[in-house]
Amino acid sequence: MARWEPNARERLVRAAIDLFAEQGYDATTVTGIAERAGLTKTTFFRYFPDKREVLFAGQELHSRTLAEAVAAAPGTATPLQAVAAALDALAATFTDGRRAFAARLLAVIDANDELRERAAFKHHQLAAATAAALRERGAPDPAAGLAAELGVRAFDAAFARWSDPSEPRTLAELAHEELDELRSALAVLD
Amino acid sequence: MARWEPNARERLVRAAIDLFAEQGYDATTVTGIAERAGLTKTTFFRYFPDKREVLFAGQELHSRTLAEAVAAAPGTATPLQAVAAALDALAATFTDGRRAFAARLLAVIDANDELRERAAFKHHQLAAATAAALRERGAPDPAAGLAAELGVRAFDAAFARWSDPSEPRTLAELAHEELDELRSALAVLD
Repeated sequence: MARWEPNARERLVRAAIDLFAEQGYDATTVTGIAERAGLTKTTFFRYFPDKREVLFAGQELHSRTLAEAVAAAPGTATPLQAVAAALDALAATFTDGRRAFAARLLAVIDANDELRERAAFKHHQLAAATAAALRERGAPDPAAGLAAELGVRAFDAAFARWSDPSEPRTLAELAHEELDELRSALAVLD
Repeated sequence: MARWEPNARERLVRAAIDLFAEQGYDATTVTGIAERAGLTKTTFFRYFPDKREVLFAGQELHSRTLAEAVAAAPGTATPLQAVAAALDALAATFTDGRRAFAARLLAVIDANDELRERAAFKHHQLAAATAAALRERGAPDPAAGLAAELGVRAFDAAFARWSDPSEPRTLAELAHEELDELRSALAVLD
């Protein structure tokens, strides 16, 4: 019988980011991550299929958060207004505790091809979930896909700025600012 | 000494797509692909690091084609006009011989998580190369990134339509049509 371990998932994520940053992604093993977290390898595999997925554990929850907030936006909201509401909902799930790890997380991903590839897929999946929710509320294609892409781009850019501890604005404020900037950029494409 | 094999790369790509379609991606080995192509495993590894990369062999060349065409567009071209020129250049590299494999290629990718992930990364990399070329010619951010994203989206959508042999339009025509549709969709986001 497995012993219940408080915050096992969060401890594993933090241990993994620490080890990836200290000794590199390739040199880090699942056993090493579990040990650093004070847990067993069996516990690790209860939460994650492999060491890579530790860094993308939020994908399912983030997708659901975005999709539910899009669905809950007022019927009169435009696609971009619904997306803005979804960014608020997603930003609200990021605690200050996570902020302390954000810069290291981004640096680890950026240093490794396999992780950058996985990050591109996460971006794609979040945008797909958001686009599906926009279609559900009647947004036509390809506008639904574009609005979703703008939202995920805005969030990624905001997250990178928020990872700097000297940034005074909240993640939601930054996400709105980035979304506004993307919206303005649409005017100069053509 | 390696014997020169005519069209080895192309033969390996076709053998791989055939086998992935016939027996599934997971059940197909590098040895099997090489055998089907009438080549050795050593020849395979001269062209590709693993079986997955066979399907994404064009990424480097496509990136370069897009970037060079953006750079070569007239100085007066808007970001989207430069992107449209890049789509023409990219479409011109797709022969009818490749069209015969397009539908099977898309079906193989769609059936496998690992391949869909890799395809998302290719999309990301093509957009990044295009965006960098747009920045080089003075397009500001985030407009450069957005115009590039629209271009790669248009190409992906056009490629899917072109993979249907009953589609009478050329790949370039379809890409322009998709880009126009994306451009019109920008107006209904807000």
